[in-house]
Parts: sequence; structure tokens; C-alpha cells
Amino acid sequence: MSLSMSAASVPAITQMLAALSAILDKAASHAEARGIDPAELINARLAPDMLPLVRQVTMASDHAKGMVARLSGRDIPKFDDTESTFEELKERIAKTLAFVKSVPAIAIDGSEERDISLKLTSGRTLTFTGQSYLIQFALPNFYFHVTTAYDILRHKGLEIGKRDFMGPQP
Amino acid sequence: MSLSMSAASVPAITQMLAALSAILDKAASHAEARGIDPAELINARLAPDMLPLVRQVTMASDHAKGMVARLSGRDIPKFDDTESTFEELKERIAKTLAFVKSVPAIAIDGSEERDISLKLTSGRTLTFTGQSYLIQFALPNFYFHVTTAYDILRHKGLEIGKRDFMGPQP
Repeated sequence: MSLSMSAASVPAITQMLAALSAILDKAASHAEARGIDPAELINARLAPDMLPLVRQVTMASDHAKGMVARLSGRDIPKFDDTESTFEELKERIAKTLAFVKSVPAIAIDGSEERDISLKLTSGRTLTFTGQSYLIQFALPNFYFHVTTAYDILRHKGLEIGKRDFMGPQP
Repeated sequence: MSLSMSAASVPAITQMLAALSAILDKAASHAEARGIDPAELINARLAPDMLPLVRQVTMASDHAKGMVARLSGRDIPKFDDTESTFEELKERIAKTLAFVKSVPAIAIDGSEERDISLKLTSGRTLTFTGQSYLIQFALPNFYFHVTTAYDILRHKGLEIGKRDFMGPQP
């Protein structure tokens, strides 16, 4: 048995997004218990020119659905990026997971050599094989945003630890 | 051609650790240019009970060498964790990269079903197949520490962006 493109992507996405959703639950409870306006957490950021929590979560979602769609040759589902509450962010994660789970493994497998090009907001176009896209672009970006969401909430005093970040181990 | 265990791990490790080393260079220059004690950055953390930058870097190194050693059935190189300067952290990364590059791909490939068990500091033992260890434990942990190192420096005002995090694209 050898590692497949779906096995290298889908289990990581589902584990980390489920963990992130549970972390958002803890953040909502934390805000409620301490009388903190949830918007204070949702708009929190680590530096003035870094994206706030809400965008870290939507970008983690974007990289997850982008990865599965591009590798399987499907259109990337468009979401509106209008989330502004913990409940809406959790729905965004649930919609992302529903899409990821709707794509059969066989549609992702075999995409190692697929040509993948993406246009960055800067106008630059990056071209990859499926394999280099997954390992050297999509996963690092996905983990960047999931980790930074965690780091923002940790910085704001949420009592979470590495086990919350990792989610349930297989 | 199908994805191999080495192709799913080594290019990510080398890209991200090279990027982290370049970020540490920028941090050292930043400290010098502004008359900031480098130790202030090296000991900075995002929350009082989170690990400081120095430990985020050594733990990124630990997960990188642990991943390659466990998957290839080698002993994990022991480093002393005595780093306290940017120069020493960069040497730690260079030693880690030298080990990672010293292991032939063929020694890592085929490890999908290898039994891997690790004892956590909590005393708990986790057991994995090579594949679940890589995708659902080692890579998430590695990215956690690389991203948190970046986030700490961003929070401390270092002028870096996503391109610094990602390093040179393939």
C-alpha cells in the first residue's frame, strides 16, 4: 500500500478543522463566562497588519476547499466571507467539511502530476504539479491559518492547549 | 508515479526550515537596527504559559528530525537544547537539515504501515501507522511550531509576511 493524495490531505483537513470548530466553541463559552464581547475575540489579531481571527478561520476554510477542489478537478465552492460570529464561523467550517467529505477519494487520488496553477492576489501566477502544490503550498498555508487562529485565541487568554489544536488522534 | 512518504515529508521540512532560518536572520538584523536586546525576541511568547520563540524553534527541529528518524527506523539525533542566540538557533536548524538530507529517500519510502509509537511527556503512549503518524501527528506538530515562531516575531513587530513564512516556492 502506498500513500495516496487523498490520504495525505483529507484526514489532516478533517482532523484540524474539527479541532478548530471545538476551539471556537471554547472561545464562545469563554467570552460568555467572562462577559467579553465575542466580537473582541473575533476581530483580535497578533499585529496591526495581520488578519484577525475571523479571516484566519475563513482562510483555513479556503485552503481546505481549494486543495480538495483543485486536486480533484472540481470547481471551488464559493462562500461569501460574511461570517461575523462564532456560530457563523462554525457553520463555515461545517460547510467546508461537508464539501471535503463529498469528494470521493478516487477523484483526488492520481493527481500527483496534475498541472495546477493559481493566481495570487498580487497578480503573480504560481504553477505546480499536484504533489508540489499539496505538500509545499496548500498544506503549509492551511496549517498557517489554523495555527494562527489558535495563537490569537491563546494570546487573548483562552485556556486551550496543544491537545485542543491537534484534535482527537487517529 | 505515486506520492511517496519521503516526498510527503522532506520537501516540506526543507522548505519551511530554510524559511525559518531566513526569518531568524531578519529578526537578528531587526534587533540590531533598533537597539533591541536579541534576548527579548528569543524569549518572547504569545501567552505567559506558552513556550517562547527559542523553544518553538527547537521543537520545530525536534519534530522534523523525529519524523525523518522514526519513518526511516533510525535513532533520533539528540541535540542539547542549549540554544540562546539567533546564531545558535540557526546552527540548530542547519544541523537538523543536515540530518534530514543525510537520510536517503528510499529509507523513508515504504514506511506507510510501519508501527510507530511515541511516549508523550504526559506519560501517554500514542501508536500510529507511519502514514497516520506523518499526516495526522508529525506534520501538524511541525507546522504548529514553525507558524508559532513566525507569529511571535510578527507580534513583536518584525516586518515579515507570508512569503517569508512560505520560503521559496518550488
